[in-house]
Order: sequence, then C-alpha cells, then structure tokens
Amino acid sequence: MKKIVILSFAIMLFTASHAQQVLFGGQDIVSPQINDNNTVTFRFTAPKAIKVQLTGDFLPTVKTDTPFGQFDAPGVVDLTEGKEGVWEYTTPKPLASELYSYSFIVDGLRVPDPNNVYLNRDVASVTNIFLIKGGIADLFSVNDVPHGTVARRWYNSPALNMDRRVTIYTPPGYEQSKETYPVFYLLHGAGGDEEAWIALGRTSQILDNLIAQGKAKPMIVVMTNGNAGQQAAPGESPKGMYKPSFMGDTRMDGDFEKAFPDVIKFIESNYRVKKEKKNRAIAGLSMGGFHSMHISKQYPDLFDYVGLFSAAIMPNENAQSEIYKNTEGKLQTQFAKKPKLYWIAIGNTDFLFQANTDYRTILDEKGYPYVYRESDGGHIWKNWRIYLTEFAPMLFK
Amino acid sequence: MKKIVILSFAIMLFTASHAQQVLFGGQDIVSPQINDNNTVTFRFTAPKAIKVQLTGDFLPTVKTDTPFGQFDAPGVVDLTEGKEGVWEYTTPKPLASELYSYSFIVDGLRVPDPNNVYLNRDVASVTNIFLIKGGIADLFSVNDVPHGTVARRWYNSPALNMDRRVTIYTPPGYEQSKETYPVFYLLHGAGGDEEAWIALGRTSQILDNLIAQGKAKPMIVVMTNGNAGQQAAPGESPKGMYKPSFMGDTRMDGDFEKAFPDVIKFIESNYRVKKEKKNRAIAGLSMGGFHSMHISKQYPDLFDYVGLFSAAIMPNENAQSEIYKNTEGKLQTQFAKKPKLYWIAIGNTDFLFQANTDYRTILDEKGYPYVYRESDGGHIWKNWRIYLTEFAPMLFK
Repeated sequence: MKKIVILSFAIMLFTASHAQQVLFGGQDIVSPQINDNNTVTFRFTAPKAIKVQLTGDFLPTVKTDTPFGQFDAPGVVDLTEGKEGVWEYTTPKPLASELYSYSFIVDGLRVPDPNNVYLNRDVASVTNIFLIKGGIADLFSVNDVPHGTVARRWYNSPALNMDRRVTIYTPPGYEQSKETYPVFYLLHGAGGDEEAWIALGRTSQILDNLIAQGKAKPMIVVMTNGNAGQQAAPGESPKGMYKPSFMGDTRMDGDFEKAFPDVIKFIESNYRVKKEKKNRAIAGLSMGGFHSMHISKQYPDLFDYVGLFSAAIMPNENAQSEIYKNTEGKLQTQFAKKPKLYWIAIGNTDFLFQANTDYRTILDEKGYPYVYRESDGGHIWKNWRIYLTEFAPMLFK
Repeated sequence: MKKIVILSFAIMLFTASHAQQVLFGGQDIVSPQINDNNTVTFRFTAPKAIKVQLTGDFLPTVKTDTPFGQFDAPGVVDLTEGKEGVWEYTTPKPLASELYSYSFIVDGLRVPDPNNVYLNRDVASVTNIFLIKGGIADLFSVNDVPHGTVARRWYNSPALNMDRRVTIYTPPGYEQSKETYPVFYLLHGAGGDEEAWIALGRTSQILDNLIAQGKAKPMIVVMTNGNAGQQAAPGESPKGMYKPSFMGDTRMDGDFEKAFPDVIKFIESNYRVKKEKKNRAIAGLSMGGFHSMHISKQYPDLFDYVGLFSAAIMPNENAQSEIYKNTEGKLQTQFAKKPKLYWIAIGNTDFLFQANTDYRTILDEKGYPYVYRESDGGHIWKNWRIYLTEFAPMLFK
C-alpha cells in the first residue's frame, strides 16, 4: 500500500487555505489582543489607507443629533500606522469586565475586524465582539461547568395559523433526569427574533454559570419569536435571506399576546415541566417587556414572575385588539392574585425612562407592589444581559 | 392612564437604530439583488473609493501560483461607480441554482457586504452567502415543509477525558413519535468543527427537504466535533474567543477514531434509535472522510453505510496509533462483513484526486465493492453539499 506521510496532507490543506486567504484578504495578525492588564490592542492591516479608525461601545459616547432628538452614539478613535501597513490602537486604560462590540472605519468605510471571527447581528448590523473576563463577563463566558442544551425547534401555532420557530435552553442534566422543571419565557425586542437572546443576550452561558454557582435554579428558558407576522428569524424561514429591518416584521397589534398560550401548550406537552403559576416566569426587553406586561395581565393565572426590561410599556390607542382594552381592570385582577415578583428595570438614560416612570406612578397610585431596578445607561444589550443575570436568580425560589 | 400612541415607539426605535446605523456605516441599498432572470446585481456604497471589486465563487476561477503548486482561486471583477457613490456589478449571465459566497474588495481591502447579514465562517474566513433557487439550491433553502430540530448538546467522552459538543439533527416528528430512528454520523474536515456541516453544509435544510420529498428516510444526523484536542467550536468552549486556524486544533493521531464509541454510546442512550449495523451510517469530508474510513474499518460491525467525501484517504507513517496499523487486514475484515454501501466521491480537480484514485486501485485489486462518484470541481463545499444530497437518499433502504 502506498505510503504518504500525514504531514503532506496538512501542508496541502494549509496551502489551499492560504491561497484562498490571500485572495479573500486574510490578515495574519492578532486582533483584538487582550493584554495582561485588560487594556486591549486592536490591529488592522491596510498599507494603502489614509486613515484607520475604531468605533466601539467601550469608547466614550458622543452626542448625535437626529430629527427626533439627541442620541448617545459610540465614539471613534484613530489608529496609528506602524510597520508593513499595520495600524494599531491600544486602549489607554484597562477595560472593565464586559462583552464589547466594535468595528473599524477605514477611510470612512466601516469594516469588521478580519482577524476576529466572533460577530453578533443586531437587526441588520453585524459587529465584532470580545469579552473581558474577571467580572460580570465571566457569566457571559463558556466556563468549565456543566452545559445545558440549546435547541432550535418548530411548533405549530393555531392562533397565528403557522409553524413558528423557538429557541429552547434546557439545563444541564435535563435529558438524564426524571425531574420536572420550571419554565422562563424570555422575549426579544422590536427588530429581534428567536436568535436575539441566545446570541446577543448570552442566555445559555449566563444560565449555565448561574446554575453551576447555585445562584439560579435549573430551569427551561423559552425564547420564542415575538413577531406575529414572522415564522422565524431572517434566513430561517421560507421567506429566505432578506435584509432585516426594525419594525419590518414587527407588529404590536395584540396577535402575539393572544397566541401566546400556543407556545405554552407546546412547551408543556413536549417537555417535562412544572405547570403551576409559581413555576412560570415571563420577561422581555423593550417590545418584549411590552409583551410581558400585556401577556401577564391578560392571563393573570399563568405567571408568578414578571420582568419588564427597558419595557416599551406604553398603552396605545392605535391597536384595536382586546388585549389592550381595559388595562386598568386587568392589572387590578393580576395584582389581586399577588404575583410573587413584578420586576421593572430600566437604564437612567433610556429613551423609555419617562414611560416607565409614568407606569410606575400608576402602580404606586394603585398600591400594586413591584421591585424597581434602575441602572446606568440606555436602551442597550449591556443592560439586558445585566438584568438577566439579576432576574434569573430570583425565580422559582 | 396616560395614552401614548404606538407609533411614537416605532419612531423612537427606528431613530435610535438609524443613528447607530449611520455611525456604524450602514448602507440603505439592496445587495445582492437576485433579478427575475437569475442574474445578480451587487451594490456597494463607497463615494471615496478609487476601485471597488467583487470576488466570489460564481466568477471564473484564476490559476494562482503558490510555493506548493498551482491552485484555482475565485476570480475578481470590477464594479462601476454610479450616482451617489454607489458601485454596481451585474453578472452577465444568469447564475445556476447554487449557494454562493462572495466579498467586496475596496481599494485592495476585503470587505463583507454591509447589506447582507448572511455570513458563513470557514475556518477563519467569513464571507457573505446567497442562494439562487430553481435547482439544487432548493434543497439548501428553508421551504414550507415540516422542519426537524437542531440541538447543540454536550456529552462526556471518557476516552478523551473531556466534555465535548455535538450538533444533532432530529427529523420532523421525532419528539411526538414513539418510533426508533436510524443514525447518520456526519464528520467535518480539518479546520472545521461541529458547526461546519450545519452552517456550510446546510444539513438541516437538505434533510428537511429530502425527507419531505420522500427521498430520504427520517433519520438522526450527528455532527460531532472531530478534533480530538478540542472540546467545541471556537468561541463555544472554555478556550474562549481565539482565532481559528487550519490544523490548529486538528490532530490526526488516531485519538478521535479511538474515542468514537463514546459518541455512539451517548447517542444510543439519549435518543430513540435503532442500534443495528444496518441502521448506522458514517460519512465525512476531507479529514472526516479519513476518519470515516478508519472508524468504519476499526469497528467493522458498526456501520453498513460509509461515505468518503473528498477524503484525505492517505495512510500515514507518522501516526503511531493502533488505529492506523494493519490497514489491509482491517479492510479485509470490514469488506468480508459486506457493508451495504461504501461510497467514494471526489471532484476531478481535487488535490486529493490522485490519493483517492490510488485508494480505489487497492480496493479494485482486492475486489472490495464500492460505488464511485466523480464530480467536477475541487475540494469545496459546493461538492460536499451535492454529495450529501446524493448520499442521504441511499441510506437505510
């Protein structure tokens, strides 16, 4: 039999790959480099560029004017050109533990970091990410702990008359166990889908770590698609690979809330779950907070734990759905049944801060008990990850 | 209760998003645009650029010299600048049905398409993808058919002394059924991991569609991580977010083959599966073909279906493992037990074409029966997706 040393296969593959990399503009440098003191060095090879810049959510924000008001936008810094066209920037100070995102700007053109394959999509924007460990981001990291399972499944929703996709986290040991588990329904915001919490929210990492530390009970987390007009995330349905947009597939017309029992029915008939109110939680961010508020009051016997994360908690006149009618009466019924936890969290610069303050005033006037958590910052994933790390440990105790 | 119309929430969110998009260089054009006649128009906004080009696997290849020989690399074409700095290129001819990948090159710098959020990672290269339907790519598309479940799970491998990640496709109806199912183990190549077949290989779409058409039997597909030194794909293990490389975590030392019974044991004790040889298949691409060849001969009673896709089917002298010893004797035993299908597929320009021809010569000399499939092209995913669409229908019949 012909003998060929294994080395030759490695060389051939490497060469084939290298030829492709050269053509596809691969760069053989390290970026981002997280230094021992948690400063971070970014590098970008662009020998012909006049200016290479970096924008990221770890840089001081700048006020940006728009026709609808002023927004905090991530800052921009310049890189310095070094040898062989490699541009470089090191943060002047160590970065606090966090999951950060960034992009380069080369002569005005936004470019992802070709040396970093870790990307997150937020609606139609794709940015690089990295983690600084040693603090909260330890909860966002894959650690040497038992891991749960993440499944993408489809269920039928008779109320919406379609098959719909859902992302389901089952805790470590679920498959081997004969136990039943409590269920936490976790809802995304406008422009999001059933991929948002698992990717941007780091849900599986957070739950794995909190459970391993004994801080959260083992639970099933159900991340359903909250857009009543959409079967699944962009690219994951027969609609094909279209360009996602804010509010494109988002409807806030009551249909999602009305159809929510379909999700619960699917979960409770397909998983070993505890089926009492005290073993169900619902929370969501932004539009998902709006959904959580309306679903929990529409079905006051279903959820003992309700979390409104930067919730778009605004009653509206446009929607005709019965879901949005008689809000006061339904809230009265919900709170008469004494939910164990009604948690409202918002950042102090969130554009929904006032709307949440108004809502809390109403709850206060009625004497409905809730727990309030105010954080720094605005309508951003950094806050929603923090809220998840704080909310999950309070559940099912 | 204060009334705020829902419209204001939409406007606020859109504005917040728009402010971010402007800063992150979002572009408000359509690209790629698949025209009615299946020509494709690519657009890129770059008012300051001198030259904008496109490279993709639908363009005629060009011969590229490297120290190790000549390779076919994807071609490059120029875009034409139009109004407001929008550059454009339309393919002169309709593209055949396929899943294609591409990138822009702006003044020498490779840039993904900011208007296309659909990306595939192949080792350390990230490129945009799109589908042309009306032929084979209908099998790669999410269609209005029943969908299986895709789960990312972890299992313990005593032989490798670590927890390892595996991607598992269960067919539509698996969860509701009381049936047992056959199992197809599908292995990736060097530089790949347990994400390769599901992302680049479109396995869940291909299986959903073949099963819906009655062309493939409902089966479980197990895509395990084939790198014995790696727990999980880059970013999915405690090793964190490092830069993936060819052969970086790849070992071809026999340990993966030796530990393979751990995967089977996990699957057979956690899923409702048929456990006879006639209900097990194994196939893999490149290194995964090498693994499939060695695993199937090492355990000659386990697999009735063996698929070598562009297999790195080279015996090697370097590896000391018992797995690679006595290849001739083990093959003799394997073929004496008459596997139902031994399938060898390779592209006629694959750099492993000669190695596969040599291997077939040996099988021919011994009179061991196999089915041979020669396709056009080289060592590329286009071929491996085709092989999967042809191999899966032959299984478990």
